[in-house]
Amino acid sequence: MKDKSAKTNFQIHELLTRRWSPRAFDAQKIEKEKLQRIFEAARWSPSASNEQPWHFIIGEKGDETFARIFETLVEFNQLWVKTAPLAGIIVGRENLLSNGKINFWYKYDVGQAAAHMSFQATHEGLFVHQMGGFDREKARELFHIPEGFEAISAFTIGYIGDYNVLHPNLQRLELEERTRKSTDEFVFSDNFGKKSELI
Amino acid sequence: MKDKSAKTNFQIHELLTRRWSPRAFDAQKIEKEKLQRIFEAARWSPSASNEQPWHFIIGEKGDETFARIFETLVEFNQLWVKTAPLAGIIVGRENLLSNGKINFWYKYDVGQAAAHMSFQATHEGLFVHQMGGFDREKARELFHIPEGFEAISAFTIGYIGDYNVLHPNLQRLELEERTRKSTDEFVFSDNFGKKSELI
Repeated sequence: MKDKSAKTNFQIHELLTRRWSPRAFDAQKIEKEKLQRIFEAARWSPSASNEQPWHFIIGEKGDETFARIFETLVEFNQLWVKTAPLAGIIVGRENLLSNGKINFWYKYDVGQAAAHMSFQATHEGLFVHQMGGFDREKARELFHIPEGFEAISAFTIGYIGDYNVLHPNLQRLELEERTRKSTDEFVFSDNFGKKSELI
Repeated sequence: MKDKSAKTNFQIHELLTRRWSPRAFDAQKIEKEKLQRIFEAARWSPSASNEQPWHFIIGEKGDETFARIFETLVEFNQLWVKTAPLAGIIVGRENLLSNGKINFWYKYDVGQAAAHMSFQATHEGLFVHQMGGFDREKARELFHIPEGFEAISAFTIGYIGDYNVLHPNLQRLELEERTRKSTDEFVFSDNFGKKSELI
């Protein structure tokens, strides 16, 4: 297995360095206790007015939910999601429970819950791969997601697998260097775009 | 200091249990090395097509950036943000760099970066308090945030302080029990709304 740990400029928590989004998963099922802790982690995420707008639909390989999630995926994702033992769709509630108005932060807060899920999964020795490449309206239809809720992302969780099982084009992605803008390019002071001297 | 650790149903990583959003901060400045690691953590967050739509504007108490961030806050937040040694505004890029179209996931991915920032801050012994209660258009004006970018949330980071310094109404909030829906209410299988048997 290639080491895909982040090549950081400053040393960060080992779970954040270790996290990445593989496509080759091992067939091994995820223990129920681990899934309980993973979604407990999402549960304690912060949210605007504590609205907790996150919902997860999850299925194990071989069950009806997994098959339906698979059906919503773009072909490229189907190529590799078939190796994963668990797939999910993350759904956000668009409106505030308090007054029914649109919640400006619902996607933002759902993203935070997804990060909490990933953090705990990494702690459990697992990997998460989030995907935008799925049909949100098909997900609404197949899972009867009501109006006012929206399917935002799909994901897989599993133990990492041997990348040699993947299609050659996907193997290449699995080995590719991970890249990010430097912090200078997104941490500012004084004005938007001006590099901060605080870091 | 009251223990506000999450009362979890399943044991999760200690950094997630310990994280909460205080209003009473200590005056102590945050070490530059810690800030470097905190934003390095945000840097390695995942994003759709690796677009990395997150930006942070940060100011230290006493500087011009902090004063301007403070000016954007609703009065309720001004009541306590004055105790914090560092304040920030998180800005998202709305459009895809690849083709200029709207990025459906930009707030979602900015939320993930905010969560990564919070994990690392917690690891450094610090606390983050995110806020929606600020004037996004005033932030745009004061920091010259261009069209196509949007101020999403404000935040403070600092060491925790003595809640007795706060206004009595805020002291009450600082002591309040933390609550969340149970995982049964947001982890589904088969159909949206149907409790999953996998957890």
